[in-house]
Amino acid sequence: MRIILASTSKRRKRILDQINLEFLIMDSKINEEKLKINKKQPHLYTIKMAEAKAKAISIKHHNDLVVGADTIVCVKGEILEKPKNKQQALSYLKKLSNNTHYVYTGVNILCKNKNINISFYEKTLITFYKLSLNDINYYIEYYKPFDKAGAYGIQDWSCIFAKNIRGCFYNIVGFPIAKFYNLMNTNNIKLNFNAKR
Amino acid sequence: MRIILASTSKRRKRILDQINLEFLIMDSKINEEKLKINKKQPHLYTIKMAEAKAKAISIKHHNDLVVGADTIVCVKGEILEKPKNKQQALSYLKKLSNNTHYVYTGVNILCKNKNINISFYEKTLITFYKLSLNDINYYIEYYKPFDKAGAYGIQDWSCIFAKNIRGCFYNIVGFPIAKFYNLMNTNNIKLNFNAKR
Repeated sequence: MRIILASTSKRRKRILDQINLEFLIMDSKINEEKLKINKKQPHLYTIKMAEAKAKAISIKHHNDLVVGADTIVCVKGEILEKPKNKQQALSYLKKLSNNTHYVYTGVNILCKNKNINISFYEKTLITFYKLSLNDINYYIEYYKPFDKAGAYGIQDWSCIFAKNIRGCFYNIVGFPIAKFYNLMNTNNIKLNFNAKR
Repeated sequence: MRIILASTSKRRKRILDQINLEFLIMDSKINEEKLKINKKQPHLYTIKMAEAKAKAISIKHHNDLVVGADTIVCVKGEILEKPKNKQQALSYLKKLSNNTHYVYTGVNILCKNKNINISFYEKTLITFYKLSLNDINYYIEYYKPFDKAGAYGIQDWSCIFAKNIRGCFYNIVGFPIAKFYNLMNTNNIKLNFNAKR
């Protein structure tokens, strides 16, 4: 069974590459803004988004195992999406500074012809140090985090923002790889690995 | 002030590279086994090891800021060092399976001519999933974790072992970068960054 990652996120690709998984990448072309999903329950929101992404690919690839995923950042009940500009990135990072936020990733694993349809989510708490305006401005200027929910990527320079994590680290990066792997095992779904690079 | 990392660990180099820091690498050539340090208090053990490493370099580089670090894995009061062979790696991973362990990294920052001598440690808790013998054997066979305390590297295939983390992720990899950066700021020690790559 082929695995298709229904996401063009470089970060998700890198996480699946890290475990040497054989997989293809396809763009679900889901317009996240057009899907009117209730955002009051963030875990359900990410699962529904992941399901929409997986479904969009699965509809033409019945025999393949399609993996959809969606990651959001929540602070004080507010969902922080990808920042639209410098001002919004600045406002997001000020909100995250000296505060604890949540990262949710919803995942859907779908294979129509084998009746596989598994959804789950992972939640990680992250506490940030108090960030200086200098550091925030440096980060936005040099790292341009406009493609990242919450305006940061813990795998880059902003690793220095994170004081404490509770949960899965790779969930913050964009894919809860350990839970995914263990769920595949529990459900007797065989994963294929490339020869060691 | 130049920064010298008193460690040849590729993982520590990669973490400092991640924040774009300008630094040199020197091998402290400390024989870890010859230093007779009490291992009953793991945090003190790592700090003393880090101090020995930094001191060995600083003695010839009085003007530079030397950074020593040492990482160990503890489970149920036992310190797991680098495994000597396949059998020991297997025995370590069996101990970590379905269990919570601690990773300690001690750090010493030393500049003789500026009277800088700062030591600290970071502690991270990690809970592993129950590991199958198949997965343990696959990991040892293909990843040969003989250069890693505890016989795993969370930044490689064994990321799927980690169910839950509490604390700093990069501390598990080998260097508590966020605490280091924030302590440098608190102590008004200026770090130099390379131009963005």
